[in-house]
Order: sequence, then structure tokens, then C-alpha cells
Amino acid sequence: MALTTQPYKGTRDFYPDEKRTQNYIFGVMRSVSERFGYEEYDAPILEPIELYQAKSGAEIVSEQTYLFTDRGGRQVAIRPEMTPTVSRMVAGRRQELGYPLRWYSIPNLMRYERPQRGRLREHWQLNVDIFGVKGLEAEHEIIALADAVMQGYGAKRDMYTVKLNSRKLMDYLLADYLGFDAEQSTRIAKIIDHMHKVSTEVFQKEIDDVLSDSQRSNNTGQKLVDLLSVKSLDQLPSEVADNTVAVELQKLLDLLQSSGITNVVFDITIMRGFDYYTDIVFEVMDTDPENNRSMFGGGRYDGLVGLFGVEPVPTVGFGMGDVTIANFLTSHSLMPELKVVTDVYVVLVGDVYSLAQATIASLRSQGLNVAVDTSGRKPGDQIKNAVKKNINFVLFIGEKELADGKFSLKNLADGQESNLSVEEVASAVKAYHQSK
Amino acid sequence: MALTTQPYKGTRDFYPDEKRTQNYIFGVMRSVSERFGYEEYDAPILEPIELYQAKSGAEIVSEQTYLFTDRGGRQVAIRPEMTPTVSRMVAGRRQELGYPLRWYSIPNLMRYERPQRGRLREHWQLNVDIFGVKGLEAEHEIIALADAVMQGYGAKRDMYTVKLNSRKLMDYLLADYLGFDAEQSTRIAKIIDHMHKVSTEVFQKEIDDVLSDSQRSNNTGQKLVDLLSVKSLDQLPSEVADNTVAVELQKLLDLLQSSGITNVVFDITIMRGFDYYTDIVFEVMDTDPENNRSMFGGGRYDGLVGLFGVEPVPTVGFGMGDVTIANFLTSHSLMPELKVVTDVYVVLVGDVYSLAQATIASLRSQGLNVAVDTSGRKPGDQIKNAVKKNINFVLFIGEKELADGKFSLKNLADGQESNLSVEEVASAVKAYHQSK
Repeated sequence: MALTTQPYKGTRDFYPDEKRTQNYIFGVMRSVSERFGYEEYDAPILEPIELYQAKSGAEIVSEQTYLFTDRGGRQVAIRPEMTPTVSRMVAGRRQELGYPLRWYSIPNLMRYERPQRGRLREHWQLNVDIFGVKGLEAEHEIIALADAVMQGYGAKRDMYTVKLNSRKLMDYLLADYLGFDAEQSTRIAKIIDHMHKVSTEVFQKEIDDVLSDSQRSNNTGQKLVDLLSVKSLDQLPSEVADNTVAVELQKLLDLLQSSGITNVVFDITIMRGFDYYTDIVFEVMDTDPENNRSMFGGGRYDGLVGLFGVEPVPTVGFGMGDVTIANFLTSHSLMPELKVVTDVYVVLVGDVYSLAQATIASLRSQGLNVAVDTSGRKPGDQIKNAVKKNINFVLFIGEKELADGKFSLKNLADGQESNLSVEEVASAVKAYHQSK
Repeated sequence: MALTTQPYKGTRDFYPDEKRTQNYIFGVMRSVSERFGYEEYDAPILEPIELYQAKSGAEIVSEQTYLFTDRGGRQVAIRPEMTPTVSRMVAGRRQELGYPLRWYSIPNLMRYERPQRGRLREHWQLNVDIFGVKGLEAEHEIIALADAVMQGYGAKRDMYTVKLNSRKLMDYLLADYLGFDAEQSTRIAKIIDHMHKVSTEVFQKEIDDVLSDSQRSNNTGQKLVDLLSVKSLDQLPSEVADNTVAVELQKLLDLLQSSGITNVVFDITIMRGFDYYTDIVFEVMDTDPENNRSMFGGGRYDGLVGLFGVEPVPTVGFGMGDVTIANFLTSHSLMPELKVVTDVYVVLVGDVYSLAQATIASLRSQGLNVAVDTSGRKPGDQIKNAVKKNINFVLFIGEKELADGKFSLKNLADGQESNLSVEEVASAVKAYHQSK
């Protein structure tokens, strides 16, 4: 029986067209991260499973992670996220590294999920983290960088919203202000985290299930629902709005606004799924009504590096997946037309493969990307090949051309043909690309 | 108990210094492949295990591949090599693709091996393949490309040798010329494949174990040993040297020599481990006596695409691993000094983080990679941070500088300091990089 040509379920093959798109997406991530002084790192795709059991959240490890036992009896996971890995690496050289430390990476990650729009089993994710900064400068810089990536793709301010909240504020609200115990607070946080995915009735029922009888009788549920409808920090009850945590959050909002990020708002319902966040969290939402969902996010996690037995390091970071970004660019018509990397397609006229080598080498040494048709077919068929491959120029090489040192270069976009030396071919092709 | 900070056995963490080196290695692979008209593709890290059972060779699948069963009961493998995957992808769009088809990729691969010099459990490998060319042009181009990558790293001709052989020639020698049956031929091929790793006595003993009594009595073993000591095609017995396969191989040697690849030789002991090779194979060897081993190789495999139930496609390709190349560059002192990507380190004088944002944004928009010290420490300590991070320039921003619109830029390499506007800072830094 023939083998299947399909990729593994929930993953993608990247044929050159798709790889070109991915390289464009990665290129913007890379150049913006480096503009902000971040350095690239990378790590193995396998990690011991203990790394995730510590803090990633039970659901992710027990249901969504690819786990197996290696031939040496080690329990390993294909990394479902990069944050535990980068924390491990920083902890491993805690003393030698200089802070603030700025790192980024674009790893592939795997999660065992039911494949659906925006969620695949394998995806790539820009991870950006700043280590060693306790103050709001870290949140400001990380959110400004995330915003600059969006701007780098040509996104307009009305296409997305940056939503901020604080885990500390929520802890204060749930525990101190509303009087929930630790277990109730955890359950309610999870309910808030997915509240936009369920109906109001389901949500109210879920909240009610958590309440004690006394909380039900003194209307704690309604108080919580009222709080969750608040749209800005100054709408909070004054005893909450005056709390240090709320004041800091307002300061960050102002700092971001003054940096030109006018589409940033407070959203009390933003929780982020991972257990490791300790303070401010943010999410970037698509405003397209067809796709009005969280695209990516991040926040502060000051506790992870310390799990490796070293002095803790305050950290803020975010992760931005390639699938959601590609969906965003497509739905907002932001995906640019991308050119193939091959500049010139050489059509061989007659049996001149060997004789043509010096000319081809010379074109390449002048910086052109040159593919050669070795099919031995008629020139017309070779040109069709260039058209199929979306290569803009064909260059004819035959015995006569080699003898004369002059070659016919044809621009397939406008049909223009010129008779040129090797040096002139190189200049003409470069000039054409620069004019586009 | 604290979690370990070590990466999974046999794999590497890439801290920014190591990642910079890897990016340099990948950059040369990428630019040379594109010079030859190859387009990048990629694929998932997981594949169904049937993909490897077909042709990769029994040892690789049963002993060296990471295999497991996913949560849906599928038997999957972390890809140990890329050739089966690229064959699957070409088969999947057999009719739509234009030939000759030129593809490259730099995937990470995993093999369960005992980690040792040049062999790790996870490595990256440049894979370059040309599809749809039956003639020697394919072998010539692929070997010329592999050679151009070596030249791209600055390697000299005396640092490495390209060794050619042909599976078809060996089949002819073993079966027709020496009279071995199919099972004997397979066993002898494996013995030849590792003959340089064992002593002459072990080798002779292994060969002798394969021989039948009649082969022993008519000296077939000695004939084989004599053949394996041949150093060029014209030293072969004339009935072998005149065979079409030998003639083709000589033609390829001449074509490569005339392309300036003077370090190419015939080597009758080159077999290549994979079962899927069908004709010419090659290996690139390090000539360093300390490290005189095969670095990488490839060859023709015309049968793989056809395993997916489509018309077969003739294919030639090679794979070049990052670990062996890094060892080669280091041992031959070819690894260049690589600069950090961050151009300027901003030292904040006083509490000006918020006020400095417009200036910092302006530097970035002019193309500089700018990191900001947010530590709040004394300027002297902030400069030490820049030194630690190997960043060449520091720029001082305080209230006075912001009021004047003039900033002090210090070159840490030569100690020079100048007072410049934002635009002048950008020009000065760019000019300095261009002069290096």
C-alpha cells in the first residue's frame, strides 16, 4: 500500500509559498525584537516533564502535552510552550548574565488539541522576555514591543486593542474585597478566564456553584458580576481604585498612551491561562467582528526562575503565535505580495550545460540567485517553467551567446528583452528589483 | 527539590552567543542555496513511523528513532532525517510542481544516540534536493552547491576532499564481477561502510565470514580487498572501467574538476548508510588528521517519491549537519568573530525613562537596534552592563540632553566620545559599522 502524503494531524507542511509567508512573519518579529535590543536564543524541543508540572497549569500538562518515555527511561515532553525553558536557561547562568536581560526566540511548540481555526497541534511562537526589572518599565517595554510588531505588519490602531489587567488586583478583589477563600478564588479565576466563550446563563450558573450559602444570601455573586462590568479603573469602588495595584496599573496605561499606543484599555476580565503569572497581564484582541478574539498576550511572572534553586528574577514576557497572526493579516488584508527569492531562470539553448558553467558562476558571484533549467526541453517549455515558478527574468544561454559574451535577458512581467553582458545582466536585474 | 537547569541529554541550549554562531552557519547555508535557485520549505517535526520503516534503514528506525504513541493511538516519530518528509511533500503535489524542482530546508532532527563528538541527539541539518533530473547535471549541481557552502565558510581546497562513488558500480562489482548473491552483497556493503572505523584484521575477518567455501578457495576475498584499494577509476580492471556506470562517474569527476572543484576524487569505499540511495553517492571529508572523518554527504535516490503511489521522480540531494560543520570551522580556525546585534546601549541619567521614549523611538526608526538600561543604577554601573553585553556604543540620556537635543555617544572600543543630535547618532553608528 502506498504511504500517505498528508502531514501529521493538526500540523502543516510548508511548501515554498507558505514558507515564504512564514519567513515574512518571522522577519518582522525578528527585526522588531532586535530594534528593542533583544538577542535571539534557542533550546531543544524535548524537555523533562517536571519542567511543566511545576507551573504551566494542570490542563496543559495532563491533557495537551506530548509526553513519552525515551529509550533510557526518561519522561520527556515536546515543549508545549517556551516560558519554562527560558526560565531554566536564565537560572542556569543566573550569576553570569547581565540585567536587564533581553531575549527572544521563535520556537515551534506542540500541543495535543482538537485542530480548529487559530489552534493547531504544531505552531511557532515569538517569545520575548525581559529579565531583572521590577518596575513598570518592563511591562511598558514588552507591551510597546508587542505593539511595534503589530505596527510592523502594517496594522492600524482600530484593527486591534491591547487589554490590561493585574492578577494582584484580581487577588485583592476576590479575596479581600469579596471575601472568597483561596480555593474559591482559583475556581472563579478559571470561570472569568473563559467567560467570553460561554453564554451569560452558563457563566452565572458557574459562579453560583462556587458560592457558599452566606455569600448567596449577601449577594456576593451580583457584586462580582457588577465588578466584572467595570470598563475603566476609575469606575471601581474607590477603596479598590486607591489600592497600590490599581494605581500602578493606571500609571502603566498612561505611560503606554503617551507612547502613542492609543488602543490600550483596562479589562477586568483578562486572566491569562497560565498559573505562573504574578501581576500585570495583557492580551491583544482582534477588533474584526468576524474574529473578535484574543490573539496573544503575556505578563509578569516573577516566580519561575527561582524554581531552579537560584535567587528569583523578576520577568515580563509575551508569546505571539504564527497561526493567529497569519489569520489576522489575512482577514485585515495586510499580507503583502511576496516575491520568490530566485532572480533569474537560465534557459539553455542546445547542449551547453558544461560550457555555461562559468557564466552562471559569474552571475551568482555578482549576487544574483540563479536557477538553471536542466530539462533539455525546447526553450519555449523552459520559459513556461520560469512562469510556473514565478521567476521574473529568463536568460538565454547558447553557443552563440557564449561566443559573443552577450546574452538575451527577458523580463517576463513586461515582455522586454535586451542583449547584455554578464555584468549588465546583474545590474539590470538589481535595478529592476530596486525600482519595485 | 529544585528543578535541573540542564538541557535534555545530548541536546544543546543556545544562549545568545551560541545562537549567533548558529545563525552565521545557517546564514551561509541559506544564501548559497538561494544563489543556486533553491527555495526554502519546512514540515512538522512529527511524522507517522511508516514513513521511515519504508527505506531509511532498519537500524535507524528500530534503534535510533524517537518513537511514541500519541493520545489518539497514532504511532509517530520525531523526524530523524528530512529525506522521507521532502519525498512525501513532493509526492503530495507531484503534478502541480515544476521540474527541475529545487528545495532546501534547515530542520532540526532527533536521533537516540550515545552523545559523542559530532553526534548529538538533536541537530540541525541543511537539506538540499533537486527533483526531476535524470542526468548528471543534478549530481554536478548538488555537489557544486555543497562545495560552494564550504567555500562560503572560507574553507580552502586542502581542508576537505569530496569523495565520489556509485551504488550501481558497487552492485555490479559485488554481484556481476565477484559473484556474490543478494544477501552477501548487502552484508558486504555494510562491512565496507564501516571499514575505516575498524582494524584491518577485524575487517578481513568480517569479509571472510560472508564467503562461501568455494569463494574462499578461489580467492574472492582477496579480489575484493584488491578492488577496495583502487584509488582511481582507471585502476579498475578494464571490464569494470568500461562499464557505463564507471564511464558516467568519470564524466562527473571531469565536470566537477572543470568547475574548479579540484579536491574531488573517486573512492570505492564510500557507501552511505541509507538504504534509499540508488546510484552516485558522495561524501565530504575533513582532511585535518585530528578529525579525518566524513562530515556530510548525499547522492541520488530515484525511488522515494514513488513510494507514495505516484510516478517516481529522479532526485539527488545531500544533508549537512550543523554540529560537524561547527567542529570543522573551529578546528580550521574559520569561525569569524560575530558582533552582537544591539548597536546602542542607552544609559539613563536620572529619572527620565518616560521622557526619553521619543528619542529612543526615533533612534529605532532610523534603523538602530537600541537597548535601554532600566536598572536605575549609577551611569558607571550601566556602562559596565554594556561592556558585559559586548555592545559597542553607549548613549547618555538625561534631562539636560533632552532639553538640548544633543546626546553624548561613547564608543567603548576606542573610548571616543562625541556630542550629537539623534540623526547624527544614527549616522555615526552606521558609519562605524560600515568601516568594520
